[in-house]
Amino acid sequence: MRIGIIGAGQLGRMLALAGYRLGQRFVFLDHSADAPGGQVGQIVLGEFDDPRRLAELAERVDILTYDVENVPAAAVQEIARRTRFLPPPAALEAGQDRLNEKRLFARLDIPAPDYRVVDDRAQLDAAVDALGLPAVLKTRRLGYDGRGQFVLRSRADLGPAWSALGRVPLILECFVQFEREVSSIGVRSTSGELAHYALTENRHESGILVRSHAPCDAPELERTAREYVERILANFDYAGVLTLELFVADGRLLANEIAPRVHNSGHWTIEGAVTSQFENHVRAVAGLPLGSTELVAPSAMVNLIGGVPDLEGLLALPGAHVHLYGKAPRPGRKLGHVTLVGPDHAALDARIEAVRALLPA
Amino acid sequence: MRIGIIGAGQLGRMLALAGYRLGQRFVFLDHSADAPGGQVGQIVLGEFDDPRRLAELAERVDILTYDVENVPAAAVQEIARRTRFLPPPAALEAGQDRLNEKRLFARLDIPAPDYRVVDDRAQLDAAVDALGLPAVLKTRRLGYDGRGQFVLRSRADLGPAWSALGRVPLILECFVQFEREVSSIGVRSTSGELAHYALTENRHESGILVRSHAPCDAPELERTAREYVERILANFDYAGVLTLELFVADGRLLANEIAPRVHNSGHWTIEGAVTSQFENHVRAVAGLPLGSTELVAPSAMVNLIGGVPDLEGLLALPGAHVHLYGKAPRPGRKLGHVTLVGPDHAALDARIEAVRALLPA
Repeated sequence: MRIGIIGAGQLGRMLALAGYRLGQRFVFLDHSADAPGGQVGQIVLGEFDDPRRLAELAERVDILTYDVENVPAAAVQEIARRTRFLPPPAALEAGQDRLNEKRLFARLDIPAPDYRVVDDRAQLDAAVDALGLPAVLKTRRLGYDGRGQFVLRSRADLGPAWSALGRVPLILECFVQFEREVSSIGVRSTSGELAHYALTENRHESGILVRSHAPCDAPELERTAREYVERILANFDYAGVLTLELFVADGRLLANEIAPRVHNSGHWTIEGAVTSQFENHVRAVAGLPLGSTELVAPSAMVNLIGGVPDLEGLLALPGAHVHLYGKAPRPGRKLGHVTLVGPDHAALDARIEAVRALLPA
Repeated sequence: MRIGIIGAGQLGRMLALAGYRLGQRFVFLDHSADAPGGQVGQIVLGEFDDPRRLAELAERVDILTYDVENVPAAAVQEIARRTRFLPPPAALEAGQDRLNEKRLFARLDIPAPDYRVVDDRAQLDAAVDALGLPAVLKTRRLGYDGRGQFVLRSRADLGPAWSALGRVPLILECFVQFEREVSSIGVRSTSGELAHYALTENRHESGILVRSHAPCDAPELERTAREYVERILANFDYAGVLTLELFVADGRLLANEIAPRVHNSGHWTIEGAVTSQFENHVRAVAGLPLGSTELVAPSAMVNLIGGVPDLEGLLALPGAHVHLYGKAPRPGRKLGHVTLVGPDHAALDARIEAVRALLPA
């Protein structure tokens, strides 16, 4: 089968590397020929919102999927009328707008932090009156890796926050004093087959994921998170991998956001699960049976961010599985990741420290 | 690093898929753009013995390796003067000619079946007189997957065998009544670091490998085989993966042939070893530290040969790791393989049967 991927970032690259093993073929759409995916497959050069380039991609493949969420919904609706497009465009749209997402959570009875819509400065003041401080002002669209967010700690922050973000539709959200951040990754096939990966605990710095580990050893939370994921999958008659990020606060789960795609917090599944999130996404959208999501052993993932990774040093670490994306170094940029598998969390912690000792300062 | 691979078959494809994870880049040389490697990387179109195309490939990369053994030695010698070429051309040359190989085994004191050189019909008769029957007449060059061989069982076979093969230099080899066929796969880095995979037992049908399993549970044979491999690696100041195929006859090892490259009998290492033969070959030729060759669990590999593989059926088998090469079906053609990992040989045997039940008749 020929699969088109809109976006040729590291997620698309890893989807293709997993799908090639199953004999699938891949063509990407991206504005850079040297994008991580372009290095490992054919590429149509163009912008994600260029209808001619989208049409060109669609003509060359049997099925379309994406590795970015900022594909304009209108362009997708149009293309999906002619070419099978999975996950469903409606899920992509829901994930693009924090307000849609909030309304989805409410409709599906999934607890989430309280929020207010902020379309003008007066609404910002009213929202702060209603929710109190601290609170987080977020753009409704195009936020990722901590971008498009501003934490308001006092009234004095309102002016700068409004100056920084006020040109686009916003929401104000309660600041959640969480104990842990977790993600629940599920997959649903075109035939409705369901599978879940172990609940994953994530640590962020400056809004960017720095490391994950699985399992969480919180069976009750894992059960509840999977139930939430299944509600979302069913709602969209979904096919593919979907990630739900949640906070754990006062021992309860609060949904933070959905990513209707494979996710950085699931990179450990390449070695840590019987079938990776990437292979299962390809299987799901290609109409193939899902593979086992079973955990091989406790696993951890450390992101390689910013500076040139010490490849030789990392490869010399026993049991370190190194993944580089072929990207040029740049501050804050995700260049690769390292997965560590088993035997237990104590051993993993020691090996995480060994990896971190090799990271550029 | 940019790595050039001469030949874009399934071995090249799997080398690239392993190397991409380490951020390496790949360009192939092959006469078909739709070759398995061409589907997953850039390709220079041309014949392996076309000096202009070889030069074009060399200009685009930092290092050259190969996935086929029939690259003409003269062309390689020429190109290796300008571009780093690994494994060393001398090893490639030794593997290209059965007589060179026999002389190598003799020089390194590695037991091998007795043989005679056959350059004309009279020498064939004399060789049969000396070695007796049955015996195997083999072309010195370009034999693989059982091609270029003729088993002589009686004097009546000599005429047809000579008609079939007599236009090229040959050897006549004793027919070995073996108990098992095994292969020992080793890897050596540019810094002289050494590692070995578990001794693998192989089963052939009509000269084509149909399945392998590892480990062999024959520690004494494994030790001896590794010693032989190390002699060969040292002899060539080798870098990369090298495979030694051997017969076990009367409980003793007899060297059959070397493949100075990754090998079909090592495909199980993708899931069954901590680091696959493909990743370790890339690490070795790129001057990176080797990864652990440790066995994850007992493993088996079944080749998918000839007819259209039942992908859906195979993917639905628990624990089956399916690899397809993107090749069109054709009788006798290796289209993919399935790896099965652990927990033990009894469980593996049951799962091998489940895979074989799905193979085209």
